[in-house]
Amino acid sequence: MTEQQTGDRYSRGLDILRRVAGVDRPAVLDSLADICPDLGRYTVEFPYGDVYARPALTLRQRQLTTVAALTALGHATPQLRFHIDGALNVGCNRREIVETIVHVVVYAGFPAALNAMTVAKEVFSQRADGSGDDLGGQPQDARESRYERGWKALSQIDGEAGHAVLAGLRDIAPDLGHYIIEFSFGDIYSRQGLDLRTRELVTIAACTALGTARPQLKVHTHGLLNVGGTREEVVEAILQMAVYAGFPAALNGMAAAREVFAERD
Amino acid sequence: MTEQQTGDRYSRGLDILRRVAGVDRPAVLDSLADICPDLGRYTVEFPYGDVYARPALTLRQRQLTTVAALTALGHATPQLRFHIDGALNVGCNRREIVETIVHVVVYAGFPAALNAMTVAKEVFSQRADGSGDDLGGQPQDARESRYERGWKALSQIDGEAGHAVLAGLRDIAPDLGHYIIEFSFGDIYSRQGLDLRTRELVTIAACTALGTARPQLKVHTHGLLNVGGTREEVVEAILQMAVYAGFPAALNGMAAAREVFAERD
Amino acid sequence: MTEQQTGDRYSRGLDILRRVAGVDRPAVLDSLADICPDLGRYTVEFPYGDVYARPALTLRQRQLTTVAALTALGHATPQLRFHIDGALNVGCNRREIVETIVHVVVYAGFPAALNAMTVAKEVFSQRADGSGDDLGGQPQDARESRYERGWKALSQIDGEAGHAVLAGLRDIAPDLGHYIIEFSFGDIYSRQGLDLRTRELVTIAACTALGTARPQLKVHTHGLLNVGGTREEVVEAILQMAVYAGFPAALNGMAAAREVFAERD
Repeated sequence: MTEQQTGDRYSRGLDILRRVAGVDRPAVLDSLADICPDLGRYTVEFPYGDVYARPALTLRQRQLTTVAALTALGHATPQLRFHIDGALNVGCNRREIVETIVHVVVYAGFPAALNAMTVAKEVFSQRADGSGDDLGGQPQDARESRYERGWKALSQIDGEAGHAVLAGLRDIAPDLGHYIIEFSFGDIYSRQGLDLRTRELVTIAACTALGTARPQLKVHTHGLLNVGGTREEVVEAILQMAVYAGFPAALNGMAAAREVFAERD
Repeated sequence: MTEQQTGDRYSRGLDILRRVAGVDRPAVLDSLADICPDLGRYTVEFPYGDVYARPALTLRQRQLTTVAALTALGHATPQLRFHIDGALNVGCNRREIVETIVHVVVYAGFPAALNAMTVAKEVFSQRADGSGDDLGGQPQDARESRYERGWKALSQIDGEAGHAVLAGLRDIAPDLGHYIIEFSFGDIYSRQGLDLRTRELVTIAACTALGTARPQLKVHTHGLLNVGGTREEVVEAILQMAVYAGFPAALNGMAAAREVFAERD
Repeated sequence: MTEQQTGDRYSRGLDILRRVAGVDRPAVLDSLADICPDLGRYTVEFPYGDVYARPALTLRQRQLTTVAALTALGHATPQLRFHIDGALNVGCNRREIVETIVHVVVYAGFPAALNAMTVAKEVFSQRADGSGDDLGGQPQDARESRYERGWKALSQIDGEAGHAVLAGLRDIAPDLGHYIIEFSFGDIYSRQGLDLRTRELVTIAACTALGTARPQLKVHTHGLLNVGGTREEVVEAILQMAVYAGFPAALNGMAAAREVFAERD
């Protein structure tokens, strides 16, 4: 790659970073100017100039997967604040962000989601726009129990892989299986405000970033493909995690995805 | 499950949450009211209405396993503060909380334990009760060396599984084996203020929440059963981690426990 | 070990802790005095009296591996602040610390590195010394592309293991392989201010502490040995992680190292 092309990476990345940041001069560049300007340059070139510039996911999709990953990681509050704001800057609505954070309860637990919701609340309160977004609750279908609703969703999304998880729990912790059906799928996956394809996309991002959920990453790679997602979307969501959780997370996630693709061929 | 039963989950959960929070109107509900009231409802229904309501562990045991898990995770300070306070509200004494945090040094390292101790100190200083609890040091048995004391504890708790860990280190890092005997077991496990059964219970919680300690989770699942714990306690401690570290952590922990149970049959 | 020797551990540890802390009375002892003085004693005895006292790594090397590990963990800000200051106290220069943090971008992602850089900036601003250290950027060799530079570095450091990683990506995510060559090795590993041997040493520390990067820990254990490091250095860096990430992290890291040593015999 020539220096000219390197220059292209920077200017391409800066354009995208400006759209996400919603300002002409992103603060990260100034904050690093007197200690490590190269890290500022890398932050423009690799995450934005290389990864975000890739066409396979929209900026809106990338911001939601990033919000999911940072929510799951739990220790990146300044970046979570920036990317919740960034998600709004690139056209996500407040409801999608709230739904993404609620969704991560399933994969990283309540503390991670509750703390991310606190950050979202701060970000929302500092913006004039979008305050009219519907953040309301779910109309429950009274004719359908949480179990019925959850079983239907689980079967649709994870199919055989999901049923295998439940079967494996029968002899040791059947109640955990019930909670997965009723809570994870009956309560969370059945919520409105985020379509199933996006839910599986952010699930792949969160599981890849955590690095401790390989079996679940495989189940939900099947899941994304089962609900109409593409292998390219799987690969892109995992690749993007190199930015937020490091290259080992992305490499190990890619190895899991490769196994799933082989299972389906 | 009928809507009626769903209602039961909420009221049952709210009763338990009130006991843990020590207030009639837990703050989490109000803080979520204007951004995601459903998450507030889930927080009442699943962690408290479903999990904490289960009889297999006492509220005191559940608070100590939660404190251990949040100490190990390291990024859930607001929840750690809430549950240290909650542990006192349900009848744990300060010494048990301090011992639980010290114990986690072995599984998550000094930074996690030191930061959790800082939180405990803040919580303790804001309460009038229990200030007389004995937080004192350990009377060392001068006739017994740390190595002798540690070897005895290791053999009693982990038995063959523990000896196998040490044997595996002999050719590459025998000193790490010595530190496990002298520090982990001679210093930490031999402390008073928390019985061995509780130490192994919180160890299972911490290792399940971390998600990176599968071999150790298996060793200490054997350990809990070796010191008089039950398979039901193992399953409950792991299941509870779905709340604090997500369902993948609980599912992967359960898979490890299943292997241990099979080894013992 | 006799009580006399236990006393030796404490006084030996206190001497080393004082050098790292740069003060006669480290604050950690006073902050724990009224809640858990034993934890203060353990903090002196095990990390400093046992581990840091080992001759296989210098205090400068240990501080850089610790800064790398705490940067990767992301949730230990007070300790990161202490050890960045400690690295300067034992003779590291600001450039080495900045390079260590930039290096961890590859293994734990941008948020972890950016947040650690913020901490480094605070620590540096509070010290009069070393403000003249060169923190400047990299003179790029215009005749060499990022890809050429990266491929050369990757081949030198990781050799066959590195080429195998790229080969495994060819069918699923070849671009991720390009980013590893151009960004990880062409941009980061090729930076000045930290020699390759130190870069691989801090990589081993970061991957061991994360606990989710086993394949990468193996590749870079080969890497350290390929660039002139010793098996003793590998073992010491992993053993030290018992202090910062817990014994499971060190035990699992040691198991990976054992496999690498066997592969090379």
